[in-house]
Amino acid sequence: MKAITLDSKSPSKLSLTQVQERVLEFGEVKVSIRAAALNHRDEWCRKGLYPNIQDGIILGSDGAGVVEEVGDGVDLAWVGKEVIINPAINWGQDQKAQSKEFEILGMPRNGTLAEKAIVPADRLVLKPEHLSFEEAAALPLAGLTAYRALFYHGQVKHGEKVLITGFGGGVAQFAFQYALAAGAEVFASSSSKEKRSVATKLGAEDVFDYSEKDWAEKALKSSGGIDLIIDSAAGNTFNDLLQVLNPGGRLIFYGATRGNISELNARKIFWNQLKIQGTTMGSDQDFEEMVQFVKEQEIKPLIDQVFPFTDCDKAFDRMKDGKQLGKIVLVP
Amino acid sequence: MKAITLDSKSPSKLSLTQVQERVLEFGEVKVSIRAAALNHRDEWCRKGLYPNIQDGIILGSDGAGVVEEVGDGVDLAWVGKEVIINPAINWGQDQKAQSKEFEILGMPRNGTLAEKAIVPADRLVLKPEHLSFEEAAALPLAGLTAYRALFYHGQVKHGEKVLITGFGGGVAQFAFQYALAAGAEVFASSSSKEKRSVATKLGAEDVFDYSEKDWAEKALKSSGGIDLIIDSAAGNTFNDLLQVLNPGGRLIFYGATRGNISELNARKIFWNQLKIQGTTMGSDQDFEEMVQFVKEQEIKPLIDQVFPFTDCDKAFDRMKDGKQLGKIVLVP
Repeated sequence: MKAITLDSKSPSKLSLTQVQERVLEFGEVKVSIRAAALNHRDEWCRKGLYPNIQDGIILGSDGAGVVEEVGDGVDLAWVGKEVIINPAINWGQDQKAQSKEFEILGMPRNGTLAEKAIVPADRLVLKPEHLSFEEAAALPLAGLTAYRALFYHGQVKHGEKVLITGFGGGVAQFAFQYALAAGAEVFASSSSKEKRSVATKLGAEDVFDYSEKDWAEKALKSSGGIDLIIDSAAGNTFNDLLQVLNPGGRLIFYGATRGNISELNARKIFWNQLKIQGTTMGSDQDFEEMVQFVKEQEIKPLIDQVFPFTDCDKAFDRMKDGKQLGKIVLVP
Repeated sequence: MKAITLDSKSPSKLSLTQVQERVLEFGEVKVSIRAAALNHRDEWCRKGLYPNIQDGIILGSDGAGVVEEVGDGVDLAWVGKEVIINPAINWGQDQKAQSKEFEILGMPRNGTLAEKAIVPADRLVLKPEHLSFEEAAALPLAGLTAYRALFYHGQVKHGEKVLITGFGGGVAQFAFQYALAAGAEVFASSSSKEKRSVATKLGAEDVFDYSEKDWAEKALKSSGGIDLIIDSAAGNTFNDLLQVLNPGGRLIFYGATRGNISELNARKIFWNQLKIQGTTMGSDQDFEEMVQFVKEQEIKPLIDQVFPFTDCDKAFDRMKDGKQLGKIVLVP
């Protein structure tokens, strides 16, 4: 079968190459991939930013397709089913945090950027009917991360004011859509004029340009105070975010594209009873709830562009440049 | 009546002086104070660290005594009752955070360091019988802050591992006692050998000297990981605390004696799903639950020393020097 693998000898560090299919082990299934999607994680793997990265690994955490074959111990009824793959493996039983055995599909374990993907059968959920394969493939990693941030940790409530920073990223867009569907008043920020205008079209109450020095004052004035912020920048931006939060407000973050958090205003946090909560991915329960929510609310992921596997270099470069608005999808 | 007031002309900035008693307004009561207790807040008022500090104000947030007189609109049955005063005024209806009208007894409003204190009747709760007036006076501000930190925000559970930093402070000691009573395994830290040995005697699993460079490693090794930390230092110590926390752990803080929080390890927070939560004082509901808990568990506040009002300078100086182990109490 053809697959997109890490290849340190290739100029792009990627190869679209022929890979030997392996035999299924107990409890595994083989999914014929109809669409896969990229995450920053894939680009970071290409850059070698994770430990123990090895040539030949098939990248990709997000995928949707049709079950082609099942291993011993798996219900035969799965064969022929249209499915989404949950890329969070071995979360464990604790809803609060993942176990030490936790891993994400697509490194070190072979992932979804292939004609066939082999995964444990318990990673499958049925594809909601309102989603195409491309849309379904866009959902798993980012949709799960956004769901846990907004609902499990954020406990978003109808009528609350929610700010999604860095609108444009995959998780941010899901958080934006989910928050709207949950009945929140949703605000967004982006340094890109184009992305700001998309957020407005999609229903943002107001959108802010965080590259402006006084954006936090503007946001405070426009919103009257935010109850819940979903962020992935961290770095030196946190004091701005604290300034925008109402007393009792929550700041949930799932990344640190701007690095470690510097000089936090401690008094502001304790006097205003603020919560800062880190989050990543989600439990199996989060994933099931998320797919159910997407089904009920008929949420359609935003797709930036669909590339054939043969254009994988272009697709990865688009992720690298951060120009995408929505998920970047690849089809075999 | 005699009262301890702020006096910028006195070398100690305090005066024990004769103050005119005023007439009760609607809904107020007059409490004959049997004991009052100091908090850092009183010392900070003496130092002029709050805005709008005025000479002549009667300091003191903590007090217990006997109701002597009630104003219009107050049930006469209160007269003669032994009471504790809740110093948190106008918290409001939101359990998540205090209202903008929130204030603390003892500045700007006259406080408890007087023979008589006038407070709204809804600030009274009956003194638990197992407490002397001195012990009851030690409870309100610090006991409330500790209760909210540990239970409302910290959601402490039986069998969890809890670390109380800076053992010796009033809030820290209540948090320590409450956590033990709640069935947690309790650890503590202090830079004072004497305070560490008291913590051990009181039931700490292990006690750490945070002035040692490798204290966090020792704490991690000894405890096997902490679920909940109650802290008031903030500053540059937070990364040490994050290192000690289990995945899904909570770090609740109610002060920042070491200043703002610098260089937080963002990845540690989001990957380990950690929560950092600020807290201060507590709602009326927190106060009622706290007194009920103290009653049921027969918790006795630790008293450092009891001074007569005439020794108020000595009492404040002891607070300033931070040598106390338990609450500093003053009696008229």
